[in-house]
Amino acid sequence: MRCAKCKGTAQVEVRRHHTAFCGPHFLEWFEAQVDRAVRRERMFTPQDRVLVAVSGGKDSLVLWDVLLRLGYRASGLHLNLGIGAYSQESQEKCEAFARDRGAELLVVDIPAEYGVGVEGLAQLTGRVACSACGLSKRYLFNRVALDRGFSVVATAHNLDDEAAVLLGNLIAGNVDALVRQAPVLESTHPGLVKKVKPLYRIAERETAAYAVLRGIDYVLDECPNSVGARSLLLKEALNLLERDAPGTKQNLYWNFLEKIRPLLRETSPGPALRSCAHCGQPTTGEVCAFCRMTERVTHSLRVRTAAPGDLAPEPVGALGALPGGPSGEEGRAPRPSRRNSWGSLVNPSSDRR
Amino acid sequence: MRCAKCKGTAQVEVRRHHTAFCGPHFLEWFEAQVDRAVRRERMFTPQDRVLVAVSGGKDSLVLWDVLLRLGYRASGLHLNLGIGAYSQESQEKCEAFARDRGAELLVVDIPAEYGVGVEGLAQLTGRVACSACGLSKRYLFNRVALDRGFSVVATAHNLDDEAAVLLGNLIAGNVDALVRQAPVLESTHPGLVKKVKPLYRIAERETAAYAVLRGIDYVLDECPNSVGARSLLLKEALNLLERDAPGTKQNLYWNFLEKIRPLLRETSPGPALRSCAHCGQPTTGEVCAFCRMTERVTHSLRVRTAAPGDLAPEPVGALGALPGGPSGEEGRAPRPSRRNSWGSLVNPSSDRR
Repeated sequence: MRCAKCKGTAQVEVRRHHTAFCGPHFLEWFEAQVDRAVRRERMFTPQDRVLVAVSGGKDSLVLWDVLLRLGYRASGLHLNLGIGAYSQESQEKCEAFARDRGAELLVVDIPAEYGVGVEGLAQLTGRVACSACGLSKRYLFNRVALDRGFSVVATAHNLDDEAAVLLGNLIAGNVDALVRQAPVLESTHPGLVKKVKPLYRIAERETAAYAVLRGIDYVLDECPNSVGARSLLLKEALNLLERDAPGTKQNLYWNFLEKIRPLLRETSPGPALRSCAHCGQPTTGEVCAFCRMTERVTHSLRVRTAAPGDLAPEPVGALGALPGGPSGEEGRAPRPSRRNSWGSLVNPSSDRR
Repeated sequence: MRCAKCKGTAQVEVRRHHTAFCGPHFLEWFEAQVDRAVRRERMFTPQDRVLVAVSGGKDSLVLWDVLLRLGYRASGLHLNLGIGAYSQESQEKCEAFARDRGAELLVVDIPAEYGVGVEGLAQLTGRVACSACGLSKRYLFNRVALDRGFSVVATAHNLDDEAAVLLGNLIAGNVDALVRQAPVLESTHPGLVKKVKPLYRIAERETAAYAVLRGIDYVLDECPNSVGARSLLLKEALNLLERDAPGTKQNLYWNFLEKIRPLLRETSPGPALRSCAHCGQPTTGEVCAFCRMTERVTHSLRVRTAAPGDLAPEPVGALGALPGGPSGEEGRAPRPSRRNSWGSLVNPSSDRR
């Protein structure tokens, strides 16, 4: 197979576009696709400060890399989820990436902030791990962006991610989630930062090819909690369709965005937002779901560990431990030595609100 | 595994309902499910004359069998599609089924009526075979029901069919088709008969189990044109999901019906219908798609075969060859000896309009 640009030997095939490219022209095509998404969907301009959510995996580091190469003002935000060696390695990959490029990396260490990692948050509040993790990410991405003056949060959801989430929401008949699923979510509340997905036109195997060709060093393991996750099953089903009908994922997602979502939005305008009584962030209720979760955790940990009179009386800012610099190592509580060992993890800064 | 009713050995598992049944209790459950669908969705009453579209395959003969057992006034309508031995065998299965039960079977022989089978209709009009076939079925089911005074047409689409069609329409972003996809389509025009799908709650493997347990003799082969069809690929993907997440198809389809379709309907009321200038059946244009197709075919066949002065000047009713009795053998033109051999198939009754 030949490169569509230079007729040299193709290295990467893009079947849904009936094309293929050599390495250098693939990278050029890839970056143009991302830039086109950013411009066409009016995600941000070169003047905006963009906060890129970086997990340390290939998609998020690829996104950050491309945005920096395209000249956008992109800082990284990494959440240390407290999932053992996986989280340790993920953070190290982000730090190395930022160091190599002289880019700004912010880190929020969830165990240090809230006493336990996302698995602990989940266990203490009766959620599944992925639910507590997703809630924490949505909350903290928004909060850090607001507090640090970023105008937009960029996440690395690619076409495969979006198509799988869409299919899952269609199966579940989750109209609210369907209405919210888009490459750009504008701010609809002063406390809500705009969210964008610049990789929504890019397939997962293309981000992998980009990472390899650019020599980006990313964490190879999937999150251990994702094993057997519904999202992987949905991706498998879509891959089966894509194999015999290239373009299935793109058609599903793009047609949804163009033809179906607008109709759902007309009839489902979405809930009215107010400010959380505790943290001020937008919520549909009195207290936001993240505050409710972390308060339950704080209470559980108090009950398990506190001696009488030992409770911290004053709330402490949730992001007290957020480092100002790129390394993200300052001001963090000691890392828990074992996962799911609750008793020893309480620290005063987690006892917020 | 034990039968949920009698604790005897279970023969059929219904995983999405977390249950299983012995043979007799499965049949009981199956018939109750169909009757529940008929009553709950107000498909028809015991007073209505129901025209069941029967292909000779398991689903349609099972549907007809269940409706007769439940005491509904159900006649069969079989279209001989002119697809070689497959169509021959299909018609024979329908005839044997009707004969065994003393039920009324109507037959429309498409090659006899229109000069060629559905593959010929497709080839002469630049369609794919499944498109010409689907168009012919929709048209003729409605027309025969109208002409013969049936109040409703019942088709045997099951849960697997409906979920696959739905997924295909979602991928294609076909909003008009999504709005039309429902277990009951009420008549919205005097020339449009109500359409219902009493098996929409039943999985394909359950109709197969019913057919085996009742000893229904059906045509085992799939239509030769369905090989590699997109619908089979969609079913394969849904089966993959169903295997690990039982209930996926049901959730996808039922949630669509309950939560998503009503919103699409609000904003997409569907096209206004008028009467076809040629046949009087409902259409969105001046002349309906079926008349346009069959006229092109008639013209092609005339050009190929007619000597000057040999053209039949007067339209002949499309259903001239419809038999009044159950056998469907009267008044049919000779069966073509080879598929795709056009020249010799013209007969006067096909030269309608």
